[in-house]
Amino acid sequence: MDVAMDCLFCKIAKGDIPSVKIYEDENILAFLDISPVEKGHTLVISKRAHSEALIDTPPDILAELLAGAKKVGEAMMKAGFGGFNVIQNNYRDGGQAVPHIHFHIIPRAKGRKGPLEWRSGANPYRDDAERDEFAALLRKNI
Amino acid sequence: MDVAMDCLFCKIAKGDIPSVKIYEDENILAFLDISPVEKGHTLVISKRAHSEALIDTPPDILAELLAGAKKVGEAMMKAGFGGFNVIQNNYRDGGQAVPHIHFHIIPRAKGRKGPLEWRSGANPYRDDAERDEFAALLRKNI
Repeated sequence: MDVAMDCLFCKIAKGDIPSVKIYEDENILAFLDISPVEKGHTLVISKRAHSEALIDTPPDILAELLAGAKKVGEAMMKAGFGGFNVIQNNYRDGGQAVPHIHFHIIPRAKGRKGPLEWRSGANPYRDDAERDEFAALLRKNI
Repeated sequence: MDVAMDCLFCKIAKGDIPSVKIYEDENILAFLDISPVEKGHTLVISKRAHSEALIDTPPDILAELLAGAKKVGEAMMKAGFGGFNVIQNNYRDGGQAVPHIHFHIIPRAKGRKGPLEWRSGANPYRDDAERDEFAALLRKNI
């Protein structure tokens, strides 16, 4: 893997920093965001290469990331959510917290009303057990 | 084009309903959102096929849409914005207003502070002239 030193997501992709995994193959890793907008909020990153933003990421890596987002979204719908959001933020002014390209996949409850919550950390897990339940629910449906 | 009857975005893609265009090729159309989260807020849709959500859109169409999002994001950075967000909402519970897959590309001002605004229509254009200025700025940088 073409890693960047001191990149948090490169370390997570390599397994040097642990994460709660939802899905993994040779190209991508999907894992739970530690500051969930909604419970089940998942991030998809590349295991193959480091790049910062959409505009400096090659098409083959983007295709793999989007295929991963699609897989996670399918799992969310099978798990009984009503919809989901795919978000990819670019640069600090765009709210990108970690400068390694990542796609957020945020599940939304069935029949939800009112405006969508977008705030990082808006819906923290009660405890690790609840977090692991959400991870298991998504994994089971992938 | 494999269109759906009564689909607003199929009609825009075919040119039967006008839009303020940012970029167009044989596969995709990028045009200004009429309810901008930020001024310059652009949508990218497929001209080739109708589908509703991420999970029922074929990989080749997704690749074209993401290439379009990348092109628009590049134009935003060249135009002097500080960052941008790529958002793709799925189903009504996920805040999808038009059931034809579309990617939002939302520019963010350089050096912005505070939380990101995500609300549709948060920053309307003063008038058509201001709208056309933003469109011209993006077109010039594509």
